[in-house]
Amino acid sequence: MPHFRITLAYDGTDFVGWQRQASGVSVQGLIEDALRTLDGRGVDVTGAGRTDAGVHALGQVAAFTIARELAPGALVRALNAHLPHAVRVLTAEDAPPTFHPRFSARTKTYRYRLWNGDVMSPFERRYAWHVPGPLNVEAMRAAARLFEGRRDFAAFQATGSSVATTEREILVSTISTTGDTEDTEGKTDVVVYEVTGTGFLRHMVRIIVGSLLEIGRGRQPVEWITGAIASRNRTTAGPTAPPDGLFLVRVEYADALAAGS
Amino acid sequence: MPHFRITLAYDGTDFVGWQRQASGVSVQGLIEDALRTLDGRGVDVTGAGRTDAGVHALGQVAAFTIARELAPGALVRALNAHLPHAVRVLTAEDAPPTFHPRFSARTKTYRYRLWNGDVMSPFERRYAWHVPGPLNVEAMRAAARLFEGRRDFAAFQATGSSVATTEREILVSTISTTGDTEDTEGKTDVVVYEVTGTGFLRHMVRIIVGSLLEIGRGRQPVEWITGAIASRNRTTAGPTAPPDGLFLVRVEYADALAAGS
Repeated sequence: MPHFRITLAYDGTDFVGWQRQASGVSVQGLIEDALRTLDGRGVDVTGAGRTDAGVHALGQVAAFTIARELAPGALVRALNAHLPHAVRVLTAEDAPPTFHPRFSARTKTYRYRLWNGDVMSPFERRYAWHVPGPLNVEAMRAAARLFEGRRDFAAFQATGSSVATTEREILVSTISTTGDTEDTEGKTDVVVYEVTGTGFLRHMVRIIVGSLLEIGRGRQPVEWITGAIASRNRTTAGPTAPPDGLFLVRVEYADALAAGS
Repeated sequence: MPHFRITLAYDGTDFVGWQRQASGVSVQGLIEDALRTLDGRGVDVTGAGRTDAGVHALGQVAAFTIARELAPGALVRALNAHLPHAVRVLTAEDAPPTFHPRFSARTKTYRYRLWNGDVMSPFERRYAWHVPGPLNVEAMRAAARLFEGRRDFAAFQATGSSVATTEREILVSTISTTGDTEDTEGKTDVVVYEVTGTGFLRHMVRIIVGSLLEIGRGRQPVEWITGAIASRNRTTAGPTAPPDGLFLVRVEYADALAAGS
């Protein structure tokens, strides 16, 4: 039976998250329901990243096996015809039976958007965290680099999580300001945190952002990050940033798997 | 009594438009209701542009007179506290009693966004018109310039409108592609039409966009625009583009009025 890999984008505002829940609308549930309609039977869909309620995706990756033989282009069109406009399948391709969106992934990239203007833009209220007031962006930039490397990130994990190891490798961790949203004067108020790693703990990106903001607001010095990581204690790190500003940007695979061969 | 000028941004998706209607939520109605709460009496608010249902604003201008003495900054905060997040007052300033948002305006600038990707982005569904398929952007660019000048735009007015004259002056009319929205590959799929004029007829920008698209899709040559304008006949021009892609970007005033002096 054909095994497919799809990439998808979604506006997570109105969903309970990626994962199917006892109640509420999940992205996984929507895709499984659409596939049931297409395939005439229950289909299990696996995703690369279990995004939380309110978190968005520009390039989530998922996989499933269906009985029906469909060309990838036809699968994209058929799925989109059965999905709400807040979820769009961007591409589909045949994948080897061994392809698993999470276990086969090499890296994942997340982006977090902060709106620093005095007044929140009506167009950003679903897609950024409003943090008015002066921000020391240069200090945040320096602090962001301190997350790069293979570290024990226990301090940057939601309390109550249980995983085999809290060691993860961050490859790139950067702060930038962007001109991608402009007001009538062309001034930009968006500060973007982007991070690429081999894996992430629960709420890890949002706790990193909450911690970087402690530095941006001058409540902690840049070096505080080093101590917070070393503490391995959640209470040492900053607060958890809200989900609205977070995007799963892309998931990367080894070339052979990416090509679906 | 103090006369105020405010600039505001709004996501028009869920409103019946700027103007108060018999039923439905209007932006004018929301501001008047907020001012009634603040001022303890009915306040009439005048806007620079009567945006239709679904049309957005980055820099709408409005004016009103209230009895209460309030500093402009306090007025911004108080209004925003009483408005939904889809409407934000950006600035307020004292204005001379003669200031009228529409009659005092020198120029208005509108922007229309087209999403040319195969699959519509979930983040653009409220803010752009989805036009998949090949587009001759260079032809659209050349055709856009043909709208510049003082012309009789009767062919580019909603049928049933009655105005004293259908002559208007367009100062700048341009097509551009922008990198302001990118997918995971960094490819942009946004084509932007921007137009500045001394005044606009009902649906004029949306009919211009619908006409430019006829050219972009190769259904009409660039020169067809010249004939469509000359015809003064609505049926000669292209269809009316949907409201979702349209933004009132800014309204400009003579310096003395802009400074509120």
